[in-house]
Amino acid sequence: MNSVIISIGNELLSGNVANTNAIFISNFLKKYGISVKQILIVPDEEESILDALSKAENYGSVIFVTGGLGPTHDDITKKSAAKYFKSDIKFHPDVLDRIKQFFIDRKIKFSNTNNEQALLPEKCNIIPNANGTAQGMCFKKENKSFYFMPGVPFEMKKMMHDSISKDLDNFGKSKIQEKLIRTFGLPESEVYSQIKAWIKKNNDIGVSLLPTLDGVDIQLYTDQSQDQKDLKTLCMELEGILGEKIYGFDNENLETVIANTLIDSKLTISVAESCTGGLISNRLTDIPGSSGYFLSGIVTYSNKSKINFLDVNPKTIQSFGAVSHETAKEMAVGIRKKNNSNIGLSTTGIAGPTGETVGKPIGTLFVGISFANTTNSYKFIYNRNRLINKRIFSQFALNRLRLELQKHE
Amino acid sequence: MNSVIISIGNELLSGNVANTNAIFISNFLKKYGISVKQILIVPDEEESILDALSKAENYGSVIFVTGGLGPTHDDITKKSAAKYFKSDIKFHPDVLDRIKQFFIDRKIKFSNTNNEQALLPEKCNIIPNANGTAQGMCFKKENKSFYFMPGVPFEMKKMMHDSISKDLDNFGKSKIQEKLIRTFGLPESEVYSQIKAWIKKNNDIGVSLLPTLDGVDIQLYTDQSQDQKDLKTLCMELEGILGEKIYGFDNENLETVIANTLIDSKLTISVAESCTGGLISNRLTDIPGSSGYFLSGIVTYSNKSKINFLDVNPKTIQSFGAVSHETAKEMAVGIRKKNNSNIGLSTTGIAGPTGETVGKPIGTLFVGISFANTTNSYKFIYNRNRLINKRIFSQFALNRLRLELQKHE
Repeated sequence: MNSVIISIGNELLSGNVANTNAIFISNFLKKYGISVKQILIVPDEEESILDALSKAENYGSVIFVTGGLGPTHDDITKKSAAKYFKSDIKFHPDVLDRIKQFFIDRKIKFSNTNNEQALLPEKCNIIPNANGTAQGMCFKKENKSFYFMPGVPFEMKKMMHDSISKDLDNFGKSKIQEKLIRTFGLPESEVYSQIKAWIKKNNDIGVSLLPTLDGVDIQLYTDQSQDQKDLKTLCMELEGILGEKIYGFDNENLETVIANTLIDSKLTISVAESCTGGLISNRLTDIPGSSGYFLSGIVTYSNKSKINFLDVNPKTIQSFGAVSHETAKEMAVGIRKKNNSNIGLSTTGIAGPTGETVGKPIGTLFVGISFANTTNSYKFIYNRNRLINKRIFSQFALNRLRLELQKHE
Repeated sequence: MNSVIISIGNELLSGNVANTNAIFISNFLKKYGISVKQILIVPDEEESILDALSKAENYGSVIFVTGGLGPTHDDITKKSAAKYFKSDIKFHPDVLDRIKQFFIDRKIKFSNTNNEQALLPEKCNIIPNANGTAQGMCFKKENKSFYFMPGVPFEMKKMMHDSISKDLDNFGKSKIQEKLIRTFGLPESEVYSQIKAWIKKNNDIGVSLLPTLDGVDIQLYTDQSQDQKDLKTLCMELEGILGEKIYGFDNENLETVIANTLIDSKLTISVAESCTGGLISNRLTDIPGSSGYFLSGIVTYSNKSKINFLDVNPKTIQSFGAVSHETAKEMAVGIRKKNNSNIGLSTTGIAGPTGETVGKPIGTLFVGISFANTTNSYKFIYNRNRLINKRIFSQFALNRLRLELQKHE
């Protein structure tokens, strides 16, 4: 079954806001075997909305519309929908009661702006909004279903989970199966070269290569209705080709993979960061339960703080520089000892846009990894811009940590 | 002048990758007075691409297409464009030379997969790619211009900056002016209530309200061709209404606003984080030159590390809990003294999904801010999920810091 997503909002066209709602909906539909054939972003203008609705009917039998349901002047989706489905708008006293209760529950003053939210097209089924005042709407037209939801992600998601999911259960027949294989350390063309013959051999499987800041992802699609190898076999074949370049699958990222390893092997870690500025600590603590293995993190930007807080030898910095294998190793040893953790991880480098020195261009990174019995360091060079460098530096450091943890097992 | 953006790629429809290219292009076009009237995401399928190109002609006179220009099997944009513009494809030896040089310059082995990249439609102007192997293409059809660019953001952006910008200079006539006013601390409906009368009075100005994780943004649009108040006057009027709820304008975020204040007033800061896990240090060090005011950050998750590294009194934690005004204040004082910085900023709270205690639900945050002569703490409660909580906690903490810095000036 095919679907179309229409996202309404000037802010989405002007580039001020990312269309995260469409990403959520696409992912949500997977388990129902519903593919998205088109995503359309249109302005808060009646003509564009009506045109988008009519075009969407050509590409999908279920259409999801988000945005423009708020109570303010620039929200015109409700009126446009009423026009498209030739419906009058009426006042729903029960909806107003529900909205008023919403304010009472949250101890917020009710503002009369919200009365508007109880005016809704007669012909729709109202989809209640547990997290806000804008009601959702479901319209049927011939064999097609149209779901209108608010643009606020939190409200839209709750509506998809609580209400619309029940309808979707009845839609999908042949489920699409997907697997994402995540790699780090090879450019896209090199990943492709390595798996080209395999793609050719498995030409009944959908394969997409997706370069991202975190590496190159390989997306596999299979269709249960065909007689195909299962996803597990396909993944094992790719692991045979790409080996340790594969760091995870599906929703896994390096922080979840590392978290699982640390928990399984009962190891603790502490982190000393210079150029990554706290990003690695932040990524490691994004995982619920990280307090079980993450002891402490420190951001030591200055030489002084590397010496004072991590016991780096001033002579090491003098002889080799703050950005060096030697300093990275001493930082890793220092943070490990200070926290009495099993592992110390460190970064020191030049994120840019300034700070270049002779032989050490912007984008130079050293990563130190210290265990009680061994300490290693790794060099990496990569330069785009400060924020991207920080992200890829953190990815390189966490990937080296993953590989060292594998050896330690 | 109006434009349409077409983004090609199954990965954009399946929800695996965000369409950041469209966001970049929309923002890039602003300074040329070009509005985006529609953004379309379509799959790597010839029929869908041809249909999108033909529809785009109805909405814009300049059309930007990204994606599907790579050398791998799933890239079919080039062939589809050749078909749409009725052009043969020919081999360009000069392009192959350029691509081979690209590999030599980067000391990477040339892979024959890349020969494919020198086959291009006859009727297009080739747009060179300084950062990759996929060439851009420009087609003209009647009065409309079509720009095809690779989907890799880094390559596409360079093409827009270096080549396409020259064409755009000749397009725009009446420039659209925009101003983004960024607020924190009020829900969207409350911001709207406060500025409703002002919006009515200024009904010749475009106004959109955009709730984001960082607060509520107000987007103003004016058109130079009309006789309107200038943006500066409009902003001053809104500042009169919303006061200190406004923390910045346009590309400013709390970290840039704070960076500017700290640099201007020659103050240094150090940060001790518990529940925000390094995110605040990471945000502060995202700013180039942050080594000028950011001395050190520490992530102290455990009680032990709060005591050992920040000199928090164990009795304080025993009596009031680690998540309390008292601990937040001692953390802020501790990190300030350890680093001899002018300011100490601390967070302690419960990001979830577990960790709730009596009287302290998930989503509870305490922020400590310590100057040499005064230390304050602030409580905040907000709960969605761990990652969103961390983000909004960091936003609350940085916003309190901004307000305290204003008082100190």
